[in-house]
Amino acid sequence: MEILTLNCGSSSLKYQLYDWDNGRVVASGIVERVTQPGSKIEHATSGKEELVREQDCPTHAEAIELILEALTDPTYGAINTIDQIKAVGHRVVHGGERFSRSVLVTPEIIEAFRELAHLAPLHNPANITGIEAARKVLPEVPHAAIMDTAWHQTMPQHAYLYALPHSWYQEHGVRRYGFHGTSFLYTAKRAAVLLEKDPFETNLIIAHIGNGSSICAVKNGVSVDTSMGMTPLEGLIMGTRSGDTDPAIPFYMINETGMTSKEVESALNKQSGVLGITEKFVDRRDIEIAAEQGDERAQLAIDMEAYRIRKYVGSYAAVLGSTDAIVFTAGVGERGPIIRQKALEGLESMGIIIDQQRNFASMTKNAETEISAPDSPVKVFVIPTDEELVMTEDTYALIDGTYKEHTEYRYRFQDPAYINADRKAKLPKDLKKWQGLDTTLTKPWR
Amino acid sequence: MEILTLNCGSSSLKYQLYDWDNGRVVASGIVERVTQPGSKIEHATSGKEELVREQDCPTHAEAIELILEALTDPTYGAINTIDQIKAVGHRVVHGGERFSRSVLVTPEIIEAFRELAHLAPLHNPANITGIEAARKVLPEVPHAAIMDTAWHQTMPQHAYLYALPHSWYQEHGVRRYGFHGTSFLYTAKRAAVLLEKDPFETNLIIAHIGNGSSICAVKNGVSVDTSMGMTPLEGLIMGTRSGDTDPAIPFYMINETGMTSKEVESALNKQSGVLGITEKFVDRRDIEIAAEQGDERAQLAIDMEAYRIRKYVGSYAAVLGSTDAIVFTAGVGERGPIIRQKALEGLESMGIIIDQQRNFASMTKNAETEISAPDSPVKVFVIPTDEELVMTEDTYALIDGTYKEHTEYRYRFQDPAYINADRKAKLPKDLKKWQGLDTTLTKPWR
Repeated sequence: MEILTLNCGSSSLKYQLYDWDNGRVVASGIVERVTQPGSKIEHATSGKEELVREQDCPTHAEAIELILEALTDPTYGAINTIDQIKAVGHRVVHGGERFSRSVLVTPEIIEAFRELAHLAPLHNPANITGIEAARKVLPEVPHAAIMDTAWHQTMPQHAYLYALPHSWYQEHGVRRYGFHGTSFLYTAKRAAVLLEKDPFETNLIIAHIGNGSSICAVKNGVSVDTSMGMTPLEGLIMGTRSGDTDPAIPFYMINETGMTSKEVESALNKQSGVLGITEKFVDRRDIEIAAEQGDERAQLAIDMEAYRIRKYVGSYAAVLGSTDAIVFTAGVGERGPIIRQKALEGLESMGIIIDQQRNFASMTKNAETEISAPDSPVKVFVIPTDEELVMTEDTYALIDGTYKEHTEYRYRFQDPAYINADRKAKLPKDLKKWQGLDTTLTKPWR
Repeated sequence: MEILTLNCGSSSLKYQLYDWDNGRVVASGIVERVTQPGSKIEHATSGKEELVREQDCPTHAEAIELILEALTDPTYGAINTIDQIKAVGHRVVHGGERFSRSVLVTPEIIEAFRELAHLAPLHNPANITGIEAARKVLPEVPHAAIMDTAWHQTMPQHAYLYALPHSWYQEHGVRRYGFHGTSFLYTAKRAAVLLEKDPFETNLIIAHIGNGSSICAVKNGVSVDTSMGMTPLEGLIMGTRSGDTDPAIPFYMINETGMTSKEVESALNKQSGVLGITEKFVDRRDIEIAAEQGDERAQLAIDMEAYRIRKYVGSYAAVLGSTDAIVFTAGVGERGPIIRQKALEGLESMGIIIDQQRNFASMTKNAETEISAPDSPVKVFVIPTDEELVMTEDTYALIDGTYKEHTEYRYRFQDPAYINADRKAKLPKDLKKWQGLDTTLTKPWR
């Protein structure tokens, strides 16, 4: 049987088709510029030539039909008929306090997402649109919803509440929700396998560092704190998001410059992070190259991003009391050895001994690697994440009737023999640069 | 010779008169409701009866005259004539990037404070008013300015910059400045004495916990990071200030409720912190009592405040790499054993072993105490702070011509034989309660 997963944004739709019986991704792709002129699908079926086709998609329904056409295309497709798709899993960003686990979609569930949309006005409406379009095009199969926030519903109250007027929580839902839940779930379970420990006896600090970044404290296998908050703006320094700042700064800028609150909000989300620091780069590889060439602002962006991660690692080490492993995942986490090195070097007093050579050797998406020294009391792992696999497994388990809270459920990828063959060795184009890189950091921390 | 220190707020004026030759505070007090009807002085001279007198002070000049009258009053006063006052030290909240040390006041210096006033609109204008009034009333003596921010000017760029548009820093001064500098300076130097180490070889984490709270990472004797930011709103949970929150929340509340940005700013400053959590208490002693009586929200406020401190301790331990001692100071830091205990318990893996009995015994303002276990690799001290003494010593050294950056200056209170006899044993009224307290914490961290 095949399971389709969909990640629907306001103008894009990412998808993946998974062959459950053989445990393999068979196809994946993206439709861009949905609802805009010049919509385009990029589709790849395992072992076949890639398909790129422009075709207008005035609504998300047409985009899903385009995906189904590509999937069943005789030349580029992966399946003969759409009847082979037995279920669809949908990513939903915000599940609020109501959802601590994945669920099968019903009209009541869609209504609940609608009620939560004010918490994630940029994401939930698009997610709902995707679900409704997919249910229209594939009305016969069950649809499941997998929330980014669900994993974090185990956080204790002292971690999820802000020191704000209590009525803001009670009346307006102002609290820490956290995001990247499926990524943390996957990497937490995988880390337990690598540690050869019961997942519910492992304490982990997981840094999901990508264009959006967050970090999670995992105690006895469940999330107890995370750096993203009510929204994905809080916490680490990201591509264009500021992460933590003095909460008074927006008011200062409004008073000082006459900017509107919407303009300041937009600046914090879209003109900040490493882009704000460098004033030109978002991609961390560009920043590495520029820093190497002596661009001081690029060096500063690396220093600041790594420093913020370091502060959270220390913070969560204190939250956990004892830490079994630190995990890096997602784009930069998996392929950013300089950031990893700067974040963790000199933490021997906390039991963290990074092996510089192993760290700089760990550059690909296809391998889970240990980058700590053999005698490091706290292990440090790089684990390529696989959010789609969590969505697929949740969807399967829901239709199979075996799904429970993740604390009472065992994923296939928790099998010690499991190898994620789908995380293909996509080496970054500039790997030569990385491999030839002098691993001596020239600017140690003061 | 006598040195007067003044701490001038918008409607209050705190003062202290110090006898330099004998190294003793001889008088101190406060004028309240300055510029308002019903101004009142409360004055205390060592060894004499207290004076309380109502007398209108339409401007700060009248308040300073009232202080001088009290100081020279035959019955309640401390000196015979105001000529005995040889210098005045003024507290100035914000010195921006310009001031990394205390300075003698000149018209140019006042102008510089005026230019910095937009960074601290609630504080600097009042500070300037106080300086100008005092110079009018005491025109013959030198006046010195001691900035709360100066101590933190040693922070490296990766710690003081935010990941915001770089132009906000360049054009509008948006960066971390930090506050409570004189308190951190005093306690840092004292901690080095207690450690019997060169102050410039000590790594410390100092938690100044009062109605306003901040925490400072001290590496080799200088500030390298601190929790208050561009303003005193960032960082720890305070009496009525939120400390860290998701920077998107103000925008959410503006959109969701129609509040103005000024109303949200006011709520973050005045209706948040432990007041926001409990919806009734600001004073931590009221909170302790309510929590003991089963008030869940009071218990939550304690948990949250301690949890935030714990996260910063971990964070700064990672910043420092190795930590010699953690120091608690200011109202709650000196007299809040439950907060201290909850913040530090279970951190043995970081080398922090708190001694519960010593911790609960350390309740007074007059003693520097070690509350870590004898075998704790990281020492934990309670050190009563003395910001006025730093102001006094800086003022003396400035007029004496011996003053330099604190890194090249040795304070009298750095003498191993020094005892701060002025921190009198003012036991809190409810000490009996504290002494009888069950020191077993009933709600450990999850």
